[in-house]
Amino acid sequence: MRQSALFTKTRKEAPANEESTNAKLLCRAGFAQKEMAGVYSFLPLGVRVLNKIGSIIREEMEAVGGQEVLLPALQAKENWVKTGRWESMDDLYKLKDRGNREFALGPTHEEILVPLMKQFVASYKDLPVAVYQLQNKFRDELRAKSGLLRGREFLMKDMYSFHADEEDMKNYYEVMKGAYRNVFSRLGLRARETEASGGTFSDFSHEYQVLTEAGEDTILYCECGFSQNMEIATGKHGDKCPRCKKGTLLEGKSIEVGNIFPLKDRFSQAFGLSYSDEKGKAHLVHMGCYGIGLGRAMGTIVEVHHDEKGIVWPASVAPFQAHLLSLPGAEKEGEKAYAALLGGGVEVLFDDRQDATPGEKFADADLLGIPLRVLVSEKTAKAKKVEVKARGEESSKLMEIDKIGTLL
Amino acid sequence: MRQSALFTKTRKEAPANEESTNAKLLCRAGFAQKEMAGVYSFLPLGVRVLNKIGSIIREEMEAVGGQEVLLPALQAKENWVKTGRWESMDDLYKLKDRGNREFALGPTHEEILVPLMKQFVASYKDLPVAVYQLQNKFRDELRAKSGLLRGREFLMKDMYSFHADEEDMKNYYEVMKGAYRNVFSRLGLRARETEASGGTFSDFSHEYQVLTEAGEDTILYCECGFSQNMEIATGKHGDKCPRCKKGTLLEGKSIEVGNIFPLKDRFSQAFGLSYSDEKGKAHLVHMGCYGIGLGRAMGTIVEVHHDEKGIVWPASVAPFQAHLLSLPGAEKEGEKAYAALLGGGVEVLFDDRQDATPGEKFADADLLGIPLRVLVSEKTAKAKKVEVKARGEESSKLMEIDKIGTLL
Repeated sequence: MRQSALFTKTRKEAPANEESTNAKLLCRAGFAQKEMAGVYSFLPLGVRVLNKIGSIIREEMEAVGGQEVLLPALQAKENWVKTGRWESMDDLYKLKDRGNREFALGPTHEEILVPLMKQFVASYKDLPVAVYQLQNKFRDELRAKSGLLRGREFLMKDMYSFHADEEDMKNYYEVMKGAYRNVFSRLGLRARETEASGGTFSDFSHEYQVLTEAGEDTILYCECGFSQNMEIATGKHGDKCPRCKKGTLLEGKSIEVGNIFPLKDRFSQAFGLSYSDEKGKAHLVHMGCYGIGLGRAMGTIVEVHHDEKGIVWPASVAPFQAHLLSLPGAEKEGEKAYAALLGGGVEVLFDDRQDATPGEKFADADLLGIPLRVLVSEKTAKAKKVEVKARGEESSKLMEIDKIGTLL
Repeated sequence: MRQSALFTKTRKEAPANEESTNAKLLCRAGFAQKEMAGVYSFLPLGVRVLNKIGSIIREEMEAVGGQEVLLPALQAKENWVKTGRWESMDDLYKLKDRGNREFALGPTHEEILVPLMKQFVASYKDLPVAVYQLQNKFRDELRAKSGLLRGREFLMKDMYSFHADEEDMKNYYEVMKGAYRNVFSRLGLRARETEASGGTFSDFSHEYQVLTEAGEDTILYCECGFSQNMEIATGKHGDKCPRCKKGTLLEGKSIEVGNIFPLKDRFSQAFGLSYSDEKGKAHLVHMGCYGIGLGRAMGTIVEVHHDEKGIVWPASVAPFQAHLLSLPGAEKEGEKAYAALLGGGVEVLFDDRQDATPGEKFADADLLGIPLRVLVSEKTAKAKKVEVKARGEESSKLMEIDKIGTLL
């Protein structure tokens, strides 16, 4: 797309009330706009990143048999009363309609999905099954100061699995660990599989934690792969690692980019979700639950992939693959390179702006963080070439304009 | 995908409280599930249809220069007070957070987008611009008895355009008429461009109306293309058409599947969205607004494309392109045909269920309404063939199993 047509513009200064690095950079670069604490609008560049994150997650959930649904945010109070969470969940938004009927605004979807599955699960033959969605959640967060890391309204992938017994759930839980490792690796995040508390549902859960000073969590970890949330850790910084017996445990701040946890029969019991085994005997269904926040993943990527000049997107989630800049005296060759890139199937943002100086174009390219910068100046144009440089690296190479379509 | 793995099942009976044909068929076939009046969950087959409708709309909006954003549902009360709609809009959901701060749950997005555009529009050079999203809307509807046609929570494409003057807005309005004609034609809907009231914003608007007895609107139309909403019509059923002077006006019930309307400077004024012209003089921005409900489009497609046996999806939005049925004695050949279809890039649902009778498989195929039914029976298998039949048609043809990948 042509940058001259893009309606957003970069800003030199971050919004005054924005404290977090991720939101400062995303707002300055025009990916997002803060509407209020914990509520962001996503602008065209941001929507492209969100969609790429969503596609990666979707592919990995489909690969482990997930079936996509789309459940509503407006949820009947009765279901929340049944699970006891109408009263117990502090961050539940409640609202009334004109007829004074009360609703919850979904912070999660067990209260919708479990009754729904009762329509379809009756026999052991109907199990196991895994269902997921990419959908908006609402949580009345008291602290929402971390930009896209903690939202009051946020896009989330939530998956729920249904099993005949705990063993089958545990086997699938291991499969999901693999899917989560794939997701975060493809997103360019080194997420540490971290033992965590099971909360009120279970004995344990696992969190995917990314080390960064911007994190609200603290983990105790070893390079061997051992990692525990400090909330449940029995060791401390400097101790010998209890797993590999060689490394030293380190304490670090981190962001929880995803979590997986067994729900056991907590919700099956509340709604009477049961199945008949081969002998016709009824049992409660066992469940697991698996979440990833898309906006939080985007914010985390920015926290760990940026430098003093701006964002450095991993190629997998970058809004465009290449950023073509044409400088004064190379307008015609810029158009040629744009056509060649589009012809080669390269997703390209073309900075064709006539009213921006070369310095402004360079600064914007650094701020936006698209992986490959393709530059056409008067000098390179004379040689019928472009200069290609990876974001975050110093070295560059020259390529012929005619062959730039084969860039990737 | 294999039907044996699909977690939804068809039902013989529609939910007891469901009156509309669209919801009856969509719920029986397992595309949707009613959660409460005006609120539906979309199940895997329904998500596939929704995504296809969304892709068609997205392509057509991009083709007329629309830039995609994603705006929040949680909206500050202040913005709604500024436009006067906090008090005047009957179907606005309001809620409070823990700090007793009030919010609107967005039924539309002028109150978010217009202040946002103030960040980016300053000069005549920044205009025109068109912005759209596919996002969830919330409206406290009193009457929500038409299945997916009128929702309390519903997915909508809303686009807003911004112009230097009324003339530029009117020119773009004509461009959008073309985009809307493309969308509905691709969705398999004969939508009549219908003159309608401008409401409180404008002198006029246009609705895209699809004739069907299930409609809540009434239009007065002629086959020449003339169409008026009865609310503003001056003629009556049986009159000579005022446009072509030949045809006879007919009255018919219809569903509004989309609408476009000029907003003039109604919202620019409320938020002070203005720009400087070439001489530095300030003017208010002129706006247009363009909506399509995705769930309503899906419901309308079902209302006009079904028969006594079930849904008859247009190929463009069908959940799968082909429905492969293997009957007893042809299991092996069924697997072969499935592999050949997948190999040919055909989106296929494979009814490989061992516990369903041929009669149940035929009935389900008719109810689900996938465009092409590919049947492998013991008889066709012996001849190494499959029988291909289009949904809603009687005739069929035989094709070799090995060549079924070239079906489309």
